[in-house]
Amino acid sequence: MKKVAIIMGSESDLPIVKKAVDTLEELSILYEVHVYSAHRTPEEAREFALSAEGSGFGVIIAAAGMAAHLAGAIAAATTLPVIGIPCASGKLQGIDALLATVQMPSGIPVATVALDGGVNAALLSAQILALGEPELARKLKEKREAAKAKVLETDRDIAEKLANFK
Amino acid sequence: MKKVAIIMGSESDLPIVKKAVDTLEELSILYEVHVYSAHRTPEEAREFALSAEGSGFGVIIAAAGMAAHLAGAIAAATTLPVIGIPCASGKLQGIDALLATVQMPSGIPVATVALDGGVNAALLSAQILALGEPELARKLKEKREAAKAKVLETDRDIAEKLANFK
Amino acid sequence: MKKVAIIMGSESDLPIVKKAVDTLEELSILYEVHVYSAHRTPEEAREFALSAEGSGFGVIIAAAGMAAHLAGAIAAATTLPVIGIPCASGKLQGIDALLATVQMPSGIPVATVALDGGVNAALLSAQILALGEPELARKLKEKREAAKAKVLETDRDIAEKLANFK
Amino acid sequence: MKKVAIIMGSESDLPIVKKAVDTLEELSILYEVHVYSAHRTPEEAREFALSAEGSGFGVIIAAAGMAAHLAGAIAAATTLPVIGIPCASGKLQGIDALLATVQMPSGIPVATVALDGGVNAALLSAQILALGEPELARKLKEKREAAKAKVLETDRDIAEKLANFK
Amino acid sequence: MKKVAIIMGSESDLPIVKKAVDTLEELSILYEVHVYSAHRTPEEAREFALSAEGSGFGVIIAAAGMAAHLAGAIAAATTLPVIGIPCASGKLQGIDALLATVQMPSGIPVATVALDGGVNAALLSAQILALGEPELARKLKEKREAAKAKVLETDRDIAEKLANFK
Amino acid sequence: MKKVAIIMGSESDLPIVKKAVDTLEELSILYEVHVYSAHRTPEEAREFALSAEGSGFGVIIAAAGMAAHLAGAIAAATTLPVIGIPCASGKLQGIDALLATVQMPSGIPVATVALDGGVNAALLSAQILALGEPELARKLKEKREAAKAKVLETDRDIAEKLANFK
Amino acid sequence: MKKVAIIMGSESDLPIVKKAVDTLEELSILYEVHVYSAHRTPEEAREFALSAEGSGFGVIIAAAGMAAHLAGAIAAATTLPVIGIPCASGKLQGIDALLATVQMPSGIPVATVALDGGVNAALLSAQILALGEPELARKLKEKREAAKAKVLETDRDIAEKLANFK
Amino acid sequence: MKKVAIIMGSESDLPIVKKAVDTLEELSILYEVHVYSAHRTPEEAREFALSAEGSGFGVIIAAAGMAAHLAGAIAAATTLPVIGIPCASGKLQGIDALLATVQMPSGIPVATVALDGGVNAALLSAQILALGEPELARKLKEKREAAKAKVLETDRDIAEKLANFK
Repeated sequence: MKKVAIIMGSESDLPIVKKAVDTLEELSILYEVHVYSAHRTPEEAREFALSAEGSGFGVIIAAAGMAAHLAGAIAAATTLPVIGIPCASGKLQGIDALLATVQMPSGIPVATVALDGGVNAALLSAQILALGEPELARKLKEKREAAKAKVLETDRDIAEKLANFK
Repeated sequence: MKKVAIIMGSESDLPIVKKAVDTLEELSILYEVHVYSAHRTPEEAREFALSAEGSGFGVIIAAAGMAAHLAGAIAAATTLPVIGIPCASGKLQGIDALLATVQMPSGIPVATVALDGGVNAALLSAQILALGEPELARKLKEKREAAKAKVLETDRDIAEKLANFK
Repeated sequence: MKKVAIIMGSESDLPIVKKAVDTLEELSILYEVHVYSAHRTPEEAREFALSAEGSGFGVIIAAAGMAAHLAGAIAAATTLPVIGIPCASGKLQGIDALLATVQMPSGIPVATVALDGGVNAALLSAQILALGEPELARKLKEKREAAKAKVLETDRDIAEKLANFK
Repeated sequence: MKKVAIIMGSESDLPIVKKAVDTLEELSILYEVHVYSAHRTPEEAREFALSAEGSGFGVIIAAAGMAAHLAGAIAAATTLPVIGIPCASGKLQGIDALLATVQMPSGIPVATVALDGGVNAALLSAQILALGEPELARKLKEKREAAKAKVLETDRDIAEKLANFK
Repeated sequence: MKKVAIIMGSESDLPIVKKAVDTLEELSILYEVHVYSAHRTPEEAREFALSAEGSGFGVIIAAAGMAAHLAGAIAAATTLPVIGIPCASGKLQGIDALLATVQMPSGIPVATVALDGGVNAALLSAQILALGEPELARKLKEKREAAKAKVLETDRDIAEKLANFK
Repeated sequence: MKKVAIIMGSESDLPIVKKAVDTLEELSILYEVHVYSAHRTPEEAREFALSAEGSGFGVIIAAAGMAAHLAGAIAAATTLPVIGIPCASGKLQGIDALLATVQMPSGIPVATVALDGGVNAALLSAQILALGEPELARKLKEKREAAKAKVLETDRDIAEKLANFK
Repeated sequence: MKKVAIIMGSESDLPIVKKAVDTLEELSILYEVHVYSAHRTPEEAREFALSAEGSGFGVIIAAAGMAAHLAGAIAAATTLPVIGIPCASGKLQGIDALLATVQMPSGIPVATVALDGGVNAALLSAQILALGEPELARKLKEKREAAKAKVLETDRDIAEKLANFK
Repeated sequence: MKKVAIIMGSESDLPIVKKAVDTLEELSILYEVHVYSAHRTPEEAREFALSAEGSGFGVIIAAAGMAAHLAGAIAAATTLPVIGIPCASGKLQGIDALLATVQMPSGIPVATVALDGGVNAALLSAQILALGEPELARKLKEKREAAKAKVLETDRDIAEKLANFK
């Protein structure tokens, strides 16, 4: 199975990347994590993206905040699917990062997930890889069932939770 | 090769879907187009999504405007990758559709592209399918080269274009 | 008198739902609270909505945050009036939830109240039920009178409050 | 059956109100239309709201743009359910009207629908009145079925529509 | 000299009103403070506004948050100048209150100051009253001079402040 | 009676200023119109503001778009009340002008009216001048009555207007 | 004197670049215009930026819309001052381009001008080059004087213009 | 080498200015810091800007929040390049300051950096001065290399950091 690469633009995005990593581990997906800045190390980011397909990666996740160019810069250098996580760092709660990640020009798509969406970026990468991996597809369906079961369990206990609230 | 499904929430999204269709045809990707509303035909939308994997689809593209729930509703019913196109219909230039498409809760990702991003949605679906299809990967790289060549050609002619402007 | 159903998309919306519950209890309106996610348990949400009229409900309140599809998904499955509470969870202070709740397409209205508006959702459900219930209408008018009296009392004491402020 | 009142803040909101009127007529709901401004004729607006319940109205719809106070002013004077239509007049595409209509303080709810949502305001008023009117409830369900049928018909013809597009 | 009335929509606006009160006291302007809600006590608010001119008031300041209708409701009932203070309460940092206060329709102006602008509302009321009061105009100019002197003093000490900063 | 000065930052604001001028003429208020830019002719703007009180002006209206500094620059140079009209020129529909006009720092208030609010700026200036001018106050009340009468007339004819609509 | 480079991300930005070009020509500043996309020709954009200093350029202007990464990508490859023009193309009136251009991370500044600010980008580049060029500085001061004179001329004629308006 | 002037509109902007100061000191650039308010001390701000070129300054940095007119007012009085730092003070997270700083009218550019971008303002001033100063240009390139090295070091240690996270 192909690997997932996770690139973060700055160490400050680590808490969000951690959630992606935990999700990938739970699904036994191989991954590599890197810190490459679109602006401070553009060549390293580009080199990584150019060689990613050859190195056995199937999906690249890029997490960045503010004028978040990282996912776009990666996407410009590969035809692998690139998933962008806009990070809500900075003063504007991430609306800058969201627009800078999602509003890509025609020709170079970035698959954008929610602000700080580390878990969903990992799940989306898994859903992509699962197209050729029935076992992974099965695990994803199990996770959905587990999430559903948890909601239904909360539903069963909601009267008690309400009674205990404050 | 797996097929791509394109679901639009309303006939008014057709111009955007047309661009996706043209892009898929150019890449010789098989596709099916449907009109299912998350709110007017939720069951049909859900049925389609539930059976999509079994019907040979590999990716689902969903285009909708305003309180754009369609991509999310589709994503809730399948573990296939779902690509959301927020459509800039309505009074708010699509910011409502963008947020309603991208801000999905943990567990159910939607790969969101730019507002009215029909071409990029198709390209992203192709990049996903190309993971197991070297010929398609080659075509995508060719398209990138062609886009690059076109920019460079514009660059060569820019002095003339500027001289002729207005 | 018909009952009110309150559906929340996630346990994190409980503090807001609690305010709705307290308001309904104060008005002696029968209610049921459920946790159903538009994305994690769409079928349960839909089943509930489809059977709500037959089960004696007159209004459904749905509370959800971010790409808040819950109220719309419920509204798509019933012609009972559905009240949406956009919840200010997530990074964007709820503007995503507000737009995703209120900007419904023609045909499927959601009666949207203010961000985190648990009390007002309950009051609105009561005002709807009160159309056929003079006793409830009387209670609502009493509550209005009490709210008015409280403002006027604050007005009487405002000089003192100002003098004591910090 | 109770009547629906539609109040518009200015004659410029007439195209939106017209859609509400057409919807009510289609459903054989009795209605009255008035032009009362929250700022130019506040007393007339208030008088109408105070007497609406006694005059046989069951729901009041209020349409206004910009600093749209009309729905709130009406809601302050009655415990009938009040539906607010924020109108996208003015320079800001209606985001001012939306926030001024929906962000009501605790105690005085306004059931807000989408920007320029004349049809949905009428449908919501019908859904409220239908609680005690099985015949109206039946008509609303028929309308839903018709909307569904129309989507499915569009779905059947979509290949042709795509082929004919431009 | 005419008096200034300060109306706040809710006790929660008291910290902002306190700043206005302190500024008026500093300028020896007579004032009265009231708590009247546009929605909970609309008649009291209106009665006050209708009688304000006759009661010796020259300016009315109205402070409110969220769907801030108070200043507009007051302005609708008097031709005295009405100053609106949008308060940054609620989830949206006051952008709702700002738009609901400033975007008044033609015919009924509200002189809007900055979010939470208690001091400036008081100063503006003073600048208005000072048109007929040379002594007050003199005090306002003195305040300006004092503010200027304070900036220049900070400028003189800035090297030291920078050196001592953290 | 004191005069009103209207300063516009650029000739492109003339249509908005024209409405203010027409309103002042209707009220027989003496006025002067100037074009001074906060950035292109800052000294002339400042000189005008510094001498305005001595020249018999009672209120200054300033209209500007984009990074609309004009009203603030005028306000910094006088203690006369300054009314700011944010103009919806530029690409952002005036939200830049609105914030740049209304969000003034403590000490220097600008009485901000709605985007492109030429009529309301003139009315506000009239309401301010009317504090010492009973005849002007009477005219303003008459205008209110006329506006009210016009709304009520529209209300009387609304059924016909609806019937004739499209 | 050093030259100015103007890079545009797409031919659609040509009307804005044309204004910059005209301004540079008026000031007799040597310039070169290129079309390089941050995403379609990232290497060419980077190569240009890397060699710009050596090729005699003193300032680089970059114009791009939507997720406008161009100025940032250029700035990452040079320590020459880089001026970013956010272009109001796309559905969001340029707020995406503005945030993607200005919100650069610490270390890599982009000197951002107003949306579609072609003239100001050229003037800013001239102001930078003029630090070592007294003749250019003189021309810039002349342009300021001319702009001032034009405002004052408009001011002189404003009464006539108002009289002739519509 | 020319000096850099840093003007802040209020003492509250000191933490942001401190970062600019530290960056300038690190680069051995001479600077002067002043506190001048566009509204409280407009003449001092203007006087400083008018004389800045003659006093040996090459760049002026201006930091201000809310209706941030300072950079524009400085820019109106000099043809030196002026860098604006919009400060995220006030209730709106700085979006007001950003728009009020960047949306300058044609003729008077302000080189705007990110919200609270003290470091980048200093770096941009250094990049401008470095056009005529090879030693400073060298230092800037060294800083870029150091920033790059720090990212690559973080990249090397990221596995460990992830393992240690929480």
